[in-house]
Amino acid sequence: MSAALRIAVAGLGTVGSGTLQLLQEHADLIAARCGRMIQVAAVSARDRQKKRSVDVSAIRWFDDPVAMAGEADIDVVIELIGGSDGIAKQVIERAIAAGHSVITANKALLATHGVALARSAEAAGVTLGYEAAVAGGVPVIKSLREGLAANSVSRIYGILNGTCNYILSTMRDSGREFADVLAEAQELGYAEADPAFDVDGVDTAHKLAILTALAFGCEVNLAGVHVEGIRDVSALDIAYANELGYRIKLLGIASRSNGGVEQRVYPCMVPASRPIANVEGVFNAVVAEGDFVGTIVSEGQGAGARPTASAVVADLIDIARGTSLPTFAVPATDLAPLPSLPIEDHVGCHYVRLMVVDRPGVIADIAGALRDAEISVEALLQRGRAPGEAVAVVITTHETRGLAMDSALRRIESLDSVLEPPRRIRIEPL
Amino acid sequence: MSAALRIAVAGLGTVGSGTLQLLQEHADLIAARCGRMIQVAAVSARDRQKKRSVDVSAIRWFDDPVAMAGEADIDVVIELIGGSDGIAKQVIERAIAAGHSVITANKALLATHGVALARSAEAAGVTLGYEAAVAGGVPVIKSLREGLAANSVSRIYGILNGTCNYILSTMRDSGREFADVLAEAQELGYAEADPAFDVDGVDTAHKLAILTALAFGCEVNLAGVHVEGIRDVSALDIAYANELGYRIKLLGIASRSNGGVEQRVYPCMVPASRPIANVEGVFNAVVAEGDFVGTIVSEGQGAGARPTASAVVADLIDIARGTSLPTFAVPATDLAPLPSLPIEDHVGCHYVRLMVVDRPGVIADIAGALRDAEISVEALLQRGRAPGEAVAVVITTHETRGLAMDSALRRIESLDSVLEPPRRIRIEPL
Repeated sequence: MSAALRIAVAGLGTVGSGTLQLLQEHADLIAARCGRMIQVAAVSARDRQKKRSVDVSAIRWFDDPVAMAGEADIDVVIELIGGSDGIAKQVIERAIAAGHSVITANKALLATHGVALARSAEAAGVTLGYEAAVAGGVPVIKSLREGLAANSVSRIYGILNGTCNYILSTMRDSGREFADVLAEAQELGYAEADPAFDVDGVDTAHKLAILTALAFGCEVNLAGVHVEGIRDVSALDIAYANELGYRIKLLGIASRSNGGVEQRVYPCMVPASRPIANVEGVFNAVVAEGDFVGTIVSEGQGAGARPTASAVVADLIDIARGTSLPTFAVPATDLAPLPSLPIEDHVGCHYVRLMVVDRPGVIADIAGALRDAEISVEALLQRGRAPGEAVAVVITTHETRGLAMDSALRRIESLDSVLEPPRRIRIEPL
Repeated sequence: MSAALRIAVAGLGTVGSGTLQLLQEHADLIAARCGRMIQVAAVSARDRQKKRSVDVSAIRWFDDPVAMAGEADIDVVIELIGGSDGIAKQVIERAIAAGHSVITANKALLATHGVALARSAEAAGVTLGYEAAVAGGVPVIKSLREGLAANSVSRIYGILNGTCNYILSTMRDSGREFADVLAEAQELGYAEADPAFDVDGVDTAHKLAILTALAFGCEVNLAGVHVEGIRDVSALDIAYANELGYRIKLLGIASRSNGGVEQRVYPCMVPASRPIANVEGVFNAVVAEGDFVGTIVSEGQGAGARPTASAVVADLIDIARGTSLPTFAVPATDLAPLPSLPIEDHVGCHYVRLMVVDRPGVIADIAGALRDAEISVEALLQRGRAPGEAVAVVITTHETRGLAMDSALRRIESLDSVLEPPRRIRIEPL
């Protein structure tokens, strides 16, 4: 058996503790699979005294994770601190400079500095593993980088945030509103006290930017992601979606066309018959479309201590086995800066819900605005009658450019009989 | 860039031609991902003159694939001839003996001689890749061997044969009988002229035996697989399944318990709400349950020239990139001969359909036979009335040992009022 692989773990929160627990529980299994032991040589966290699910008293302790990352007698540094800058970045940079491989679950950091870190790692001849950064335990990074390596991928999309999927699933099941379900999710620990990262789509955007680079061999471009969150999704829209045969899901979608890349994160309506429409609760799913393989769907738990630890240690086992691949499947120096296509140019179908005063001529005004923007209506429905009062009008359109829809919606919003800003949700046939 | 990887392809049928086409179409993409070119140095097939979708006239031709496999100036031999013995086996043995890595899509061969071949390959220090042997383009081998390497897997199951899944899906959609749908599938090219390998469950058993070895680190044990095919599934049973909230799927299921392994292939009823119940047509899906990662579902096209070529070339790219792992995740010399648990000891729920003469006392006789075997009935239903004529009686049971069910069914079959052999289908809650 080869010499043990010596690792240092920076950050002992949920995922860090889960990783140590996994390494302890499966020490023999992992040694059998790698042909060598994995030895936790050092750990670092903010508070040494904190009560943890694993005993770290026998492991060399560092108050300073950056100093730990630079130690000579380490092979791999595992960064589980988090944050797109600051300490986490310093830890990784120091580790690479010291010639250590790095494993991280930090999507914010990779979405922001991924290409620079990949270049440093590859120049130093070390590995940068990040399976845990996207879709938790689901091995989507490996699947894209290796399993689908023979394909040109044209599109990749997925449910990448379990908190949002839990909220949307629960809203549908219970008929309750967003704020109410969010408050409950926070109590249950499914949502953070500050939920903005999740519910505003930022976390999904981070993960999508990483998948885009990997799938298309282009530079990570977080600024090129169009992001909308789920705060404005109402119980009424979810009910209408059901009636129309759709489910509302927060998707990250990246597609390649005309020499550019589209990256979009928004709640959208997907046909109820699609596999991804039936991924419920905290589960994640990623769908990749390759020119030879066709459509591949991968589904599993996207967060949590144990699934995320599974992904961290999978990267570790790869390194222990001697596998070393470019971070984004091609050398980071070869990643192309593919142009980012603006959302205004995206052609797609839309669902629009308006709250209008129920009086003659309203529908004609709305239809006129759509006609003038050359938008073709698929269906227009007004349910119930309440003369002089507010009623909902729902419109679904055929394919139209985003820009045309924007201009039509501006004009519709300015109509006297329209009482609230129109609510627009994209329809993704997938 | 490193020297080109020189490959030899034995067998130029659908998958062989698809592989050459992929290598041609994506030569640059693959070179970018591997850091080296892949060069098709030699090919062999039965008929040199046959018209093919790719031009092989400029490639060195061998009439004898075994001689080709032994050539010195080759790095990797790709075996796409098929068959559990004979030429395919000789090709692989010769290649390994000559120090070449091997890639194969041959599940029959691996299910029969997988451990011996893995030991030879590992002793020779070469790789034996077989991603294409299970679930076509879906990277399940990689996912289990690497993506889930940090887990102890307790169960793995899947829809592993697209022909059977197509037939069962079509029977359900159309209400037609097996023979009728099979004949149509043969006309459409979805089923072979001799369909036995597919519809009798043999192909699924081959794939399950391979997955079992990989997931549990045990020797491949094809003889330990209990196999039933789908010929006896009737339109009536499919209709009852729907009514009871199930779908009938041909599953391969391997689970570990009490120091042994259960491997079962049979058509079974799965709750309609499960992801695998909604995998339709020629698609395959594999579900793995790991102790840290939870449940991971992978779905995609399980056959066809292009998806299978995608898997073959994924293995090739791994080899070109320098990745080399034990065939079944641990060294083949360490694979344990885990005892195979007999189907008679399997505890599960059952659906039983009887055709009986509609007369007083029949139900009491049947219920008595079940009671005497200590089988607890969940539901018993007789639809319609036709005094003195044949009617269907459907029974679903709570969990019971296979042996008890066997004995109860023998007694029920011997009753005068029971007109046909009972039809038993297992219920898998999953």
